[in-house]
Amino acid sequence: MSTPRRSDPALGGILATDQYQLTMAQLYWKEGWSERTAQFDYFFRSYPDYGDHQAGYCIAAGLGWLLEWMEGARFTRDDLEILAAQRTVTGEPRFDPEFITWLEKYGDFTSLEIRAIPEGRVVHPNAPIASVVGPLALAQILETHLLNRLNYPTLIATKASRAKEAARGGAVLEFGLRRGPEQGAHAGGYGALIGGADFTSNTALSTVMGLDPKGTHAHSMVQAYMALGKGELEAFRRFAELYPDECVLLVDTVDVLTSGVPNAITVFRELKEKGYRPGGIRLDSGDLAYLAIQSSVMLDEAGFPEVPIVLSSDLDELVIWQILSQIDSEAPRYGVDPQKLAARLVYGVGTRLITSEGDGALGGVYKLVALADDNGEMVPAIKVSEDVAKVPIPGVKRVFRVYDRRGLATADLVALADEDPASMPQLQLHHPHLGLQRVLAASEVSEIEELMVTVFSGGRRLDGSPDLEELRRRRDADLKRLDTGVRRLVNPHVYHVSVTRAMHEMQKGLLDEALDGADI
Amino acid sequence: MSTPRRSDPALGGILATDQYQLTMAQLYWKEGWSERTAQFDYFFRSYPDYGDHQAGYCIAAGLGWLLEWMEGARFTRDDLEILAAQRTVTGEPRFDPEFITWLEKYGDFTSLEIRAIPEGRVVHPNAPIASVVGPLALAQILETHLLNRLNYPTLIATKASRAKEAARGGAVLEFGLRRGPEQGAHAGGYGALIGGADFTSNTALSTVMGLDPKGTHAHSMVQAYMALGKGELEAFRRFAELYPDECVLLVDTVDVLTSGVPNAITVFRELKEKGYRPGGIRLDSGDLAYLAIQSSVMLDEAGFPEVPIVLSSDLDELVIWQILSQIDSEAPRYGVDPQKLAARLVYGVGTRLITSEGDGALGGVYKLVALADDNGEMVPAIKVSEDVAKVPIPGVKRVFRVYDRRGLATADLVALADEDPASMPQLQLHHPHLGLQRVLAASEVSEIEELMVTVFSGGRRLDGSPDLEELRRRRDADLKRLDTGVRRLVNPHVYHVSVTRAMHEMQKGLLDEALDGADI
Repeated sequence: MSTPRRSDPALGGILATDQYQLTMAQLYWKEGWSERTAQFDYFFRSYPDYGDHQAGYCIAAGLGWLLEWMEGARFTRDDLEILAAQRTVTGEPRFDPEFITWLEKYGDFTSLEIRAIPEGRVVHPNAPIASVVGPLALAQILETHLLNRLNYPTLIATKASRAKEAARGGAVLEFGLRRGPEQGAHAGGYGALIGGADFTSNTALSTVMGLDPKGTHAHSMVQAYMALGKGELEAFRRFAELYPDECVLLVDTVDVLTSGVPNAITVFRELKEKGYRPGGIRLDSGDLAYLAIQSSVMLDEAGFPEVPIVLSSDLDELVIWQILSQIDSEAPRYGVDPQKLAARLVYGVGTRLITSEGDGALGGVYKLVALADDNGEMVPAIKVSEDVAKVPIPGVKRVFRVYDRRGLATADLVALADEDPASMPQLQLHHPHLGLQRVLAASEVSEIEELMVTVFSGGRRLDGSPDLEELRRRRDADLKRLDTGVRRLVNPHVYHVSVTRAMHEMQKGLLDEALDGADI
Repeated sequence: MSTPRRSDPALGGILATDQYQLTMAQLYWKEGWSERTAQFDYFFRSYPDYGDHQAGYCIAAGLGWLLEWMEGARFTRDDLEILAAQRTVTGEPRFDPEFITWLEKYGDFTSLEIRAIPEGRVVHPNAPIASVVGPLALAQILETHLLNRLNYPTLIATKASRAKEAARGGAVLEFGLRRGPEQGAHAGGYGALIGGADFTSNTALSTVMGLDPKGTHAHSMVQAYMALGKGELEAFRRFAELYPDECVLLVDTVDVLTSGVPNAITVFRELKEKGYRPGGIRLDSGDLAYLAIQSSVMLDEAGFPEVPIVLSSDLDELVIWQILSQIDSEAPRYGVDPQKLAARLVYGVGTRLITSEGDGALGGVYKLVALADDNGEMVPAIKVSEDVAKVPIPGVKRVFRVYDRRGLATADLVALADEDPASMPQLQLHHPHLGLQRVLAASEVSEIEELMVTVFSGGRRLDGSPDLEELRRRRDADLKRLDTGVRRLVNPHVYHVSVTRAMHEMQKGLLDEALDGADI
């Protein structure tokens, strides 16, 4: 064995997949099926459930970075040598040299086409978020890459959207890099910035996203002054001299109310005299609601009613909600207007955002739903399961979002490829795993929107390479058209994802057939 | 704004830090302190707590990859241009051109020295796992990188060690890439392989670690055959023809006991006739304990009593423990010897391992503990906190592991730099935040081992660049010397981490002084 290297190019390449994708690809090649057209759908089966609270929608994120990677991904000479060197338990080469030659020739993603719901949009369970169509072997090899690059950013974008909802419009700052999952923390931060975080402390990520990085200072700065015989006030003063127009002071290194806030006020007065607006204070420990109220009283009295108060320390949507509820009930006792206080609060959200506290993984899956027969016709594929909720919606399909007369999204509808719900006099909405859910007359519908667009073809991303502003615009537009019950943080109203009657019947027929045809 | 790019080199570089590290570094530079020697300690305050169960030790992981990155990290011309282009809210350059020139000259980690507990070893709270000594500004900038690259792998190594303990010697396979945190999943897999996983399905990571990647096949393979009018048996047969000496069959695509296992047995018989040993079956859904028992009965009857049974589907240490407990009580009813069955089980552990289900972050911190005064003497630094458990152990220090007469580790002991516990007639063990814990006479001690070694100096890693075998050897040796109560999965016995009497007094003195000296 040799020293493992993080910088080994294999870790960023096409071999960063599950081994069985490669052994299955070789079997398909052996069968002569490697170039047979297949369709795999990417979807998740249930929203994140954080235990005490649950998501009622997700924000799709990660697609742009997946497509960017796919444009450049291919089996390199080194990759092929690695595969050629693999041996089975009895010492035989695991991969046929002719299969390796096939990979050398066809081993990239230029032959795949992807249709997807655009990144940044609200998405729901069971309906596909992405459909991958192309040669069976390559679509199979893509599985792990696609799941790895979509599941986690979508999970974090969803959590960030919830934090932003809880914050009642207050700014949310992503602070998760230090406790986040090594280099995956960048993808988490990316998802957070799409989903709801306004800024991040991560300098590199900020640069990539076109944002100004945000930050204050650490306890270690005050400690350094103290270790050299100076005090907190001196530390604040020197920091303010260097950063007079964006001076945010961390006030809990010694004691918030007897040292930190009084010293910050002294320094803010000095800044004000020089014509600067103080940047704010940051509270990083203790009872944040109580300390925010008391600090605001002190800042108000000192003539700084506008100065922001940044809160941090294990925040997430539930903690933010609790803090604001506590402020609502307690602030008036101290003569503080809760709404005015809420308006000056900023939230630094770290560990609990980047790890999606309460539910650390999105259960996104990638399922074979159709395969070309010998005549090139796409045959629907079904996966039987004892658990009916695990049966994917089979076949080639289209996905629509149905808006009610208020203009709010009322259901996502999965139809057969040749169905057009807009021309139907009424919509029969069937639960994807149970029976009929409801019927919508055309008069109850204000708009039917097709959701999936082609985002990858000919080896190129065709998603318009959206910038952050565009991604956030999509999120905002979708959130505005979502029922408030669905946006609730705890026990949200269940949004309907349905299949058309024709899809329902096709699914049922296939399931019966598969159970009859089992080799038993 | 432009399209955010995952491949932007900034994301793997030195700017992948929290912005405040850079603004603080500039303040230190302004004060003339940037090259003043500082010491920061990396440690965590409490073991992962998964809710129903808790860790009683951690496995240190990530150091090798951190040091590898540090060897090459420096402020590039692009990085410096990014900083030079930053503007404050009033449009002023945030960074002084002279500070940027300083970064250009000194902006790498060649001036830092790191002492650490070697990677792969058992570690405990409060005692430093790594101490970074060097110029204040650079040690400060390293903070986010070090935390990002050590916290997560250590978290996953710890979880993997627990899964391996639960598995009673059964092989543990890491399957987490698809649900893991984007590219951070490689670091998670790396931690898992050090901590307890025997193999991984991740082909690229296996190659980097010097392991053979493991895998079976997916449901999609059986589905593909079914979609083309063939059945599960045909799929198994063709797979076995291609991989006769390592044929592991996934038996739950249709139905485990009426289709999957009977078809697998048919194929195994064919393999046996050709002189091959079947590789095993995999169960991926349903009541895994029950299905394992029933499958083993069928395999035994068919003459395959040795064939492994791979279990997967949301496994972690608690689920594995439950499965084996259920087998212990149920297997005899079906005439199956529980121990024989346990010996053929293999565990594919995915989502819950790579996300550390139940506790998704290690709370590792990086605290300033000493700073050189004007005479170059290292002055201890203290951080006051209302929560006494959050006060770090100050100053320059040494860490020892004390073994009892049985040769088992009984305490980790943090001493002043000039103390030698081996020469003390008795050891006074003080809790790092409370009073005296216990006194150990020299006669009760079989060995005192110093834990930290120099792992980075002169810009080079000096940790011996251990391979996986060496890292696992360290883990195994430490686990053998750990009390079984500490290794318990639920409510483990609390291992003592202590400070010497002299350290205790120094800490107390500093704390009193800091509280007196607050500027109030």
